[in-house]
Amino acid sequence: MFEEIRRPTLVVDTGKVRENVLRMKGRADRNGTAFRPHLKTHQSRVIGRLFRDLGVRTGTVSSVEMAKLFADDGWDDLTIAFPANLREIGEMDELAGRIRLGLLADNPETIRALAAGLSRPVDLWIKIDVGSRRCGIRAEDREGLRAVSEAVRAAPRLRLAGVLTHDSRTYGVRGREAVAALFREGRDALLAAKAFLASEGWPDLRASFGDTPSMSLVEDWSGLDEVRPGNFAYYDLQQYVAGSCSPGDIAAAVACPVVGVYPDRGEAVVYGGAVHLSKQSQTLPEGGTSYGAVFEVRDGRWTGFREGAGVRTVTQEHGIVRMGPEDLASTRIGDLVFLCPVHSCLAADLLRPNTVYL
Amino acid sequence: MFEEIRRPTLVVDTGKVRENVLRMKGRADRNGTAFRPHLKTHQSRVIGRLFRDLGVRTGTVSSVEMAKLFADDGWDDLTIAFPANLREIGEMDELAGRIRLGLLADNPETIRALAAGLSRPVDLWIKIDVGSRRCGIRAEDREGLRAVSEAVRAAPRLRLAGVLTHDSRTYGVRGREAVAALFREGRDALLAAKAFLASEGWPDLRASFGDTPSMSLVEDWSGLDEVRPGNFAYYDLQQYVAGSCSPGDIAAAVACPVVGVYPDRGEAVVYGGAVHLSKQSQTLPEGGTSYGAVFEVRDGRWTGFREGAGVRTVTQEHGIVRMGPEDLASTRIGDLVFLCPVHSCLAADLLRPNTVYL
Repeated sequence: MFEEIRRPTLVVDTGKVRENVLRMKGRADRNGTAFRPHLKTHQSRVIGRLFRDLGVRTGTVSSVEMAKLFADDGWDDLTIAFPANLREIGEMDELAGRIRLGLLADNPETIRALAAGLSRPVDLWIKIDVGSRRCGIRAEDREGLRAVSEAVRAAPRLRLAGVLTHDSRTYGVRGREAVAALFREGRDALLAAKAFLASEGWPDLRASFGDTPSMSLVEDWSGLDEVRPGNFAYYDLQQYVAGSCSPGDIAAAVACPVVGVYPDRGEAVVYGGAVHLSKQSQTLPEGGTSYGAVFEVRDGRWTGFREGAGVRTVTQEHGIVRMGPEDLASTRIGDLVFLCPVHSCLAADLLRPNTVYL
Repeated sequence: MFEEIRRPTLVVDTGKVRENVLRMKGRADRNGTAFRPHLKTHQSRVIGRLFRDLGVRTGTVSSVEMAKLFADDGWDDLTIAFPANLREIGEMDELAGRIRLGLLADNPETIRALAAGLSRPVDLWIKIDVGSRRCGIRAEDREGLRAVSEAVRAAPRLRLAGVLTHDSRTYGVRGREAVAALFREGRDALLAAKAFLASEGWPDLRASFGDTPSMSLVEDWSGLDEVRPGNFAYYDLQQYVAGSCSPGDIAAAVACPVVGVYPDRGEAVVYGGAVHLSKQSQTLPEGGTSYGAVFEVRDGRWTGFREGAGVRTVTQEHGIVRMGPEDLASTRIGDLVFLCPVHSCLAADLLRPNTVYL
């Protein structure tokens, strides 16, 4: 059934995506939390429509380009969950004229530039840093929170929507307890920032939280008004190692043609390297580093990982794949190997021109 | 002069590319070695034309797609220096009908499939593994060499052109002596394979060698008939650390808008992450790991690296940039920061839709 695949190709099992979305949306509904999934994992109108068919109407993106991609396909309520890039203020203003647009800022300078440059109203979210030290005002920085919120007060076209965070620390730990502990710490910091702003005269702000490990492993989202996980649509090796999913939940594979078989090294070489899988690696619980797992495939569907197999390293177009002797003996040049990417967001970005949907 | 840049953009200084090409071509000419530069670093017709204007008529690519890109722009002699992908045999045959096409193989199975599937003559290079354990027949594997060359003898449309290698080990060492030692070892292994095949009745084979560290740091290429370096057109942080170039030789920068400034952390955050720079990191001689250096820019040209600055980490769209207090104090949100990528081949691939040429 994969005869038409000639080059490294992202193969997406839409049945699995559907199950992943229903599970996550069900949890959001049970918690009474608004669901605004991140669409950057797939950047795909096909998958975006699948979300909409399941009743999802609000989304998150991470660039103005991505907001345009989805706005042009019928999405009319999007948050760009990346600090507002002032060099794209014209594009943001154009978008604000046709959809409900949310923007992020963490400093008065950006707020003032948006106030001066936008001709249309937007939702403004204050980005909070709850520990990952990427962007945002530290949750405990009251002076910072006050300065930003006051700058918003002086900007009539900016509607202060709430406080928003993404705690990337959960991607670096393993298992439900470790993730849950970070989740509670991050959520509580976010809610403290919200409470402080309420005391400053902003009583109706919302608290928006997002990350796939927390949302996959923690059932109780008390206190949160909105969640924005993204990776869960596809999952990947990183999420499997973190404990967020089982191999059977992973909805995206990279199909790679075999171009070399080296039984003396216990390796095959595939057409599929850093420009297809990305250069992201994963430390494995059993030791060592992997650039991807190898799926077991039956009747055109991947069912789990092949034991003792994995991508040892990648160069620009080459993937060096370890395999057991039996696997290797049955592998022919020209066969397809289905790899599980370490980070599906990056593989999906790289393979956007070469994607097929099952 | 960079007012029009709104998103992460590859900026290529064509004057520096020209100098890099002239320097490398001069060395090839002095050695009497054919020059077949790898075009995968840039994948750019603009830079391809610059090569042709300097008298370069033969090129190397790493995929059938790339061969088409350049064949459609006037290149009529290309080697696909990647093991022949049997799933693209139709495309290879089409290409062989309009250009002189070189293909690689390291096993009889591939040779027989090419013989059966191609209707037009091609040059066939035997890929030799001189130590990097990626693809190729080990240089000392006489049985393997004999089996492949005999398979070629039985295939009338395959012209055995020679033995070819790429020794990626040189990317992992530092300095002229270490690179030169590996170069001599790899070259001698390649020449031994050529000599063995001569004794088997193939007297006119060529020896093709390639890698930017060797070709940048070793003057004497005795014994080689052809070289295929590629990265030297742009160079990058990896090549600087290896000792292959000075910062002033690096011809490609990634211009990234500043979206956050965090003086308490000594960091700025730029729009420019793993989907722009790639996730490749570089171990630094002074310790630590970098995802990119920061260029000093004067009058619109980068002149060297900013001291004490560097990309600490990247996520999908974010680059976290360490900077000294003075640099940080003069950095405004909306400014552009010019980053030196760790691996320019990957950044250029990612930023193909967003490239400008100076």
